[in-house]
Amino acid sequence: MANLLAYNTDVLMYSRSAELTERLNRERFRFGVPLHERVTVVNDFSLIAERCQLLFPIVPSNNFREMMRSITDHLRPSHLLIHGTKGLDITGMDELDIPKKGIERRNVHTMTDVIRQESVVVRVGALTGPNLARELLDGQPSASVIASKFDEVIDRAKLVLKSSQLHVFGTHDMLGAELAGVLKNVIALGSGILKGVGLGKNIQAMLVTRGLVEMVHFGQALGSDKRAFFGTAGIGDLIATATSKKSRNYMFGYRIGSGESLAEVTATSQELAEGVRTLMITRHLARSMRLRVPITEMLYQIVFEQYPVTEAMNYLITYPYDVDVDFL
Amino acid sequence: MANLLAYNTDVLMYSRSAELTERLNRERFRFGVPLHERVTVVNDFSLIAERCQLLFPIVPSNNFREMMRSITDHLRPSHLLIHGTKGLDITGMDELDIPKKGIERRNVHTMTDVIRQESVVVRVGALTGPNLARELLDGQPSASVIASKFDEVIDRAKLVLKSSQLHVFGTHDMLGAELAGVLKNVIALGSGILKGVGLGKNIQAMLVTRGLVEMVHFGQALGSDKRAFFGTAGIGDLIATATSKKSRNYMFGYRIGSGESLAEVTATSQELAEGVRTLMITRHLARSMRLRVPITEMLYQIVFEQYPVTEAMNYLITYPYDVDVDFL
Repeated sequence: MANLLAYNTDVLMYSRSAELTERLNRERFRFGVPLHERVTVVNDFSLIAERCQLLFPIVPSNNFREMMRSITDHLRPSHLLIHGTKGLDITGMDELDIPKKGIERRNVHTMTDVIRQESVVVRVGALTGPNLARELLDGQPSASVIASKFDEVIDRAKLVLKSSQLHVFGTHDMLGAELAGVLKNVIALGSGILKGVGLGKNIQAMLVTRGLVEMVHFGQALGSDKRAFFGTAGIGDLIATATSKKSRNYMFGYRIGSGESLAEVTATSQELAEGVRTLMITRHLARSMRLRVPITEMLYQIVFEQYPVTEAMNYLITYPYDVDVDFL
Repeated sequence: MANLLAYNTDVLMYSRSAELTERLNRERFRFGVPLHERVTVVNDFSLIAERCQLLFPIVPSNNFREMMRSITDHLRPSHLLIHGTKGLDITGMDELDIPKKGIERRNVHTMTDVIRQESVVVRVGALTGPNLARELLDGQPSASVIASKFDEVIDRAKLVLKSSQLHVFGTHDMLGAELAGVLKNVIALGSGILKGVGLGKNIQAMLVTRGLVEMVHFGQALGSDKRAFFGTAGIGDLIATATSKKSRNYMFGYRIGSGESLAEVTATSQELAEGVRTLMITRHLARSMRLRVPITEMLYQIVFEQYPVTEAMNYLITYPYDVDVDFL
């Protein structure tokens, strides 16, 4: 992300670790690629808050609120925040209680909700779209979406992000774009499961297509428009993530489909794919909201309840879908 | 197709060649898989017309009209025809003249148009959806769409097609479903080009997403609803075809992207991918109908006018798309 911004502007990158900050500035290498010369790593967030108006917080969803609390004293109404986190926030209950107690709509927030709740910042946006990190690091071209209610946020983001490597779309359907990015991880995970089991593209296409329908229904139930789901932030991100071995969510599913258990995959992963947490949240949320989401339900049972994949596939194939396209 | 039908019914399969008919009935093998015991190959079309009410003509689009003319004397109004051909028909002009003279809307027909024009059959349908032939032959599960104005056609097709291997959706948006299946081949071809050049999933996702937009605009210009484009016959088929090496269209693009010329690929292919012919037709049709289809135009120039792929990619990345989703 810092390197993408460095096409157009000087960048300050924040690290909580003094040791990592020192090492990055000395070695100028991260994830196997050189840091652009316009990127400076700093350990002092107050310096960033003072020098920068446009900030891009990008941390896993389960740390997002804590991160916001740690920086909120430095934030002013003049700041613009565009997050790049594709997950949901849980508040008002312990996450570990979800399987037993279920979850209500009021316990679930998007990252932009969290930014608004935890800071004085008003001009908020989300960066989404098909952005496989490894490809971006390798200099591959891509397309992103900046979603915000504010033209100013979209325009400023375009100015610093657009380059020969990145096409940037803007949309005002912020909730839709944000939710599309979040929900697609579950379908990507499912797509990986199919591949892990040894199934082909035909049935993967059915999963992705019907999965998109569930994403739209979910989004509508959570109050979003359906528009974003059919664009770069929705279908685009879904296609990239659900067919690439460079996607953590896809690879998580692939390992489950190959026969590993949730515990085994978790034990050997540095960081759990966002889709796993989202699957846990959305399945229980769907229950409390009485949504009919057979694919989400099926994937939940495979991942968390050891339901056999082949039977789940048979269930999907023979599921009595009445209508193919029922959301337009 | 015959083997899929044989899950539920006895099947007569037609071959024009007496020699092939004899061999198939003796060897009981085709494309590396055994013919189901309920499939009988016959060389006499009148026998099929007499014994069967439901027929599935599936031949390449450039032979479809000729095939219809060869069988039309045997067809009666009581027959139901469901075709499985994903291409367009050109009439009233020589195809070779298209690059010089262009093409008008009246020269272009769908396969269902051709069936209606060339026979007394009224109850017509199209079989579409993500159906990579190789996967079906290997017994992999899939989902198909039967598109028809007639419930009777959809219901009859479901009865004989539904199985543990195949989920069958029905839709009344026949033109949309048919065009989605046709137009997606062009995007699949483009996706193969990107892969051939060595580009990644992020930009492939942008091509597919923006390509879907062009498909929808094309469909609307040709008089279809947009509904089918967002279901199994549209997005579903597009995802399967645009990401699989088992797709002829994708592989054609892959070879072009790897540096081969149109002439070289043509010389070493048994049968040219439908997408190549569709690309030729749709690009010139877009011209005469004044449609803005930058991806189609770009792909046309790469395939037929040796435009450098890297410059085309740069054009796509920097194309001034105003809005991401402008079709809802």
